[in-house]
Amino acid sequence: MRRAIDLAARGLGATSPNPVVGCVLLDRDGAVVGEGWHQRAGGPHAEAHALSEAGEHARGGTALVTLEPCAHTGRTAPCATALVEAGVRRVVYAVGDPDPLARGGAAVLRAAGVDTEVGLLAEEATAGNTAWLTAVNRGRPHVTWKYAATLDGRSAAADGSSRWITSAESRADVHRLRVEADAVVVGSGTRRADDPHLAVRGVEGAVQPLRVVCDTWARTPPDARVLDDTAPTLLAVSEDADTRQLPETTQVVRLPRAATGLRLAPLLEELYARDVRAVLLEGGPRLAGAFLAAGLVDRVVAYLAPVLLGAGPAALADAGIGTLTQALRLSVTETARLGADLRVTGVPESPAAASRTAGSHTAVRRPVGTRTT
Amino acid sequence: MRRAIDLAARGLGATSPNPVVGCVLLDRDGAVVGEGWHQRAGGPHAEAHALSEAGEHARGGTALVTLEPCAHTGRTAPCATALVEAGVRRVVYAVGDPDPLARGGAAVLRAAGVDTEVGLLAEEATAGNTAWLTAVNRGRPHVTWKYAATLDGRSAAADGSSRWITSAESRADVHRLRVEADAVVVGSGTRRADDPHLAVRGVEGAVQPLRVVCDTWARTPPDARVLDDTAPTLLAVSEDADTRQLPETTQVVRLPRAATGLRLAPLLEELYARDVRAVLLEGGPRLAGAFLAAGLVDRVVAYLAPVLLGAGPAALADAGIGTLTQALRLSVTETARLGADLRVTGVPESPAAASRTAGSHTAVRRPVGTRTT
Ligand SMILES: NC(=O)c1ccc[n+]([C@@H]2O[C@H](COP(=O)([O-])OP(=O)(O)OC[C@H]3O[C@@H](n4cnc5c(N)ncnc54)[C@H](OP(=O)(O)O)[C@@H]3O)[C@@H](O)[C@H]2O)c1
Ligand SMILES: NC(=O)c1ccc[n+]([C@@H]2O[C@H](COP(=O)([O-])OP(=O)(O)OC[C@H]3O[C@@H](n4cnc5c(N)ncnc54)[C@H](OP(=O)(O)O)[C@@H]3O)[C@@H](O)[C@H]2O)c1
Repeated sequence: MRRAIDLAARGLGATSPNPVVGCVLLDRDGAVVGEGWHQRAGGPHAEAHALSEAGEHARGGTALVTLEPCAHTGRTAPCATALVEAGVRRVVYAVGDPDPLARGGAAVLRAAGVDTEVGLLAEEATAGNTAWLTAVNRGRPHVTWKYAATLDGRSAAADGSSRWITSAESRADVHRLRVEADAVVVGSGTRRADDPHLAVRGVEGAVQPLRVVCDTWARTPPDARVLDDTAPTLLAVSEDADTRQLPETTQVVRLPRAATGLRLAPLLEELYARDVRAVLLEGGPRLAGAFLAAGLVDRVVAYLAPVLLGAGPAALADAGIGTLTQALRLSVTETARLGADLRVTGVPESPAAASRTAGSHTAVRRPVGTRTT
Repeated sequence: MRRAIDLAARGLGATSPNPVVGCVLLDRDGAVVGEGWHQRAGGPHAEAHALSEAGEHARGGTALVTLEPCAHTGRTAPCATALVEAGVRRVVYAVGDPDPLARGGAAVLRAAGVDTEVGLLAEEATAGNTAWLTAVNRGRPHVTWKYAATLDGRSAAADGSSRWITSAESRADVHRLRVEADAVVVGSGTRRADDPHLAVRGVEGAVQPLRVVCDTWARTPPDARVLDDTAPTLLAVSEDADTRQLPETTQVVRLPRAATGLRLAPLLEELYARDVRAVLLEGGPRLAGAFLAAGLVDRVVAYLAPVLLGAGPAALADAGIGTLTQALRLSVTETARLGADLRVTGVPESPAAASRTAGSHTAVRRPVGTRTT
């Protein structure tokens, strides 16, 4: 199953709106005869890959799958049926499928007399699919906020200089997060200050994430790097923004306004409807503050450079927190050294408790399932 | 030798102006027959403790000492001579003594026909004596700046609340740093905001550190907790400060003024003259900024709570750094988890490069040796 989990991870960033799935097939003697993972939405599922590799050897064997095999016909045939037809005698899966459209595979298998077992390495498998599971359960994309700062919490020096606060290793790691995301989101402040490109570069076969700019007044200039044709881009603007100066090809979504900028819950709804399951929020400090205040951040990844500045813009602004008891506490899931830097990963202790700002909206209407399978 | 280093560490915070030293004596067959460490200034040295425990068994044996045995008569007789007289045949020490008044012990031993060897576990032994070695080499106390902050670099929430940002484990650890220090230094801002006590509590046999407040205008009120009689206190004030309202018992030192507050190099000189070798700088952000700008910080210990605030005072202010290339880079020597918190320990990469602020003074006149032995 560990092998299946590793295989599944290879699909990160390419399978949305589907989960990542890995599958290992053993013949009746327990020898590995097939492996597969779900490589991209619309393509064959992990089980199909593994079955076609195993051929006749699957008969009487065991399938180890990271997620309950699906029971519904989408772009591909149901995996539960395929396993039955291949003569697989036993199916061990790590976690059940929460998706109302796809679940029920275990029942199909049992009805056909296949032994099924659930729960093996469930924790690891869940971790591997965190973004997708969170998204399906919450009805909105999983959001990772990443930021880079000095040990004293500055994202730039007093004069604005910030290249490079963090190490090359940290920057490469951010790029990996981008590869794993379906959408990368920034605010208009960061767009203006850094003219970022936000695309994935130098990773063969990577699916480009959707680039999203929260730009209330549609002020992104036509020659902004984020509007080039390397990857798709979505401009989130207010309902009354004037978008005439934008290139015709630019995708635009109009959203209701909040006290500051745009309402974020409808933004995430829109992204979910566009099959986005994993969002990487790349800043800046104000947009991140608004996401945190609305309880819409599921994971924080901080890259801390061992640098002191004593002046310069803060890494996080305006999260609607006035006193210490309202502070957003993280449960730290991992710390690592990346070159000279520290990477601290954490999960907000109670996302609900973080939504205190008047005017922010955490209730997300659960959109209809859009899993393409 | 590792055992000797462990023994030495027991003296931290109690031996200044002397180093910490540990000694293990082996008899001629290599069995441990005596152990000792320098417990407090004016008391017997490590070697004397070990020799008295070993008695006749020391004859023909080996002494393992973390620091070159001393060669000069202070409050106690020279250790080199004592080792010779006890008939010790071989002396292995980790690091040479840089103190011009005390060194020369190895020569005394060799002249008496004792085998001497230097360098065993030198690195560990040096680490155990960092504060003292730095102080003797620089002619000013070793300075550790500790601070507590959130992951986004805030030392308090927007309304000033800061109890407790960090965990009980972190606070206990700060207390340990205090035990190991000879003086604890704060600025008048912290004095006023927190009315801190700064003494060591609940540690049996601990020597109280000297409590120091940088209070340019001598505004500390007579009933300030830092002025109670738990531990000695020194008020650093400007040459023209009016000190008439202070209790008569309060120790005061008058120092020249800098652009902001007091000049810090003369403060450290004064502390050195008062036998302080290890200073714990407990803040606040502005005084720490001035110490860093002057290149007078030798070690930084950051306690980072996994908390986000997005508002509130910064952990570090005004370090005279305007642009990223001037940033103070640390070489991280250790990271640890303390309860929910992270502790990051680092050493400024080039202390000299940190002294850029016009008006700060890094040149320290080297005071005469005041080791009491
Ligand atoms: N250290 C890091 O990891 C990191 C990462 C990214 C950026 N940065 C730095 O951050 C700086 C920019 O900071 P910033 O705070 O101005 O940028 P920002 O957070 O990227 O953008 C803020 C702007 O986004 C728009 N916006 C739309 N909806 C919003 C909402 N719901 N909440 C908040 N803002 C919303 C608002 O402008 P309109 O309403 O006018 O559109 C707002 O002023 C740059 O210097 C950049 O280099 C640092
Ligand atoms: N997070 C932490 O670890 C931590 C630690 C300590 C304090 N704090 C917080 O920090 C806040 C106080 O901040 P602060 O910056 O005002 O306090 P501070 O750094 O303790 O004190 C600054 C004051 O010290 C005096 N001073 C004397 N010589 C100085 C010099 N060479 N450089 C700078 N200052 C000198 C100055 O006042 P005069 O010239 O008028 O005397 C100056 O305004 C409090 O809220 C406290 O709770 C946090």
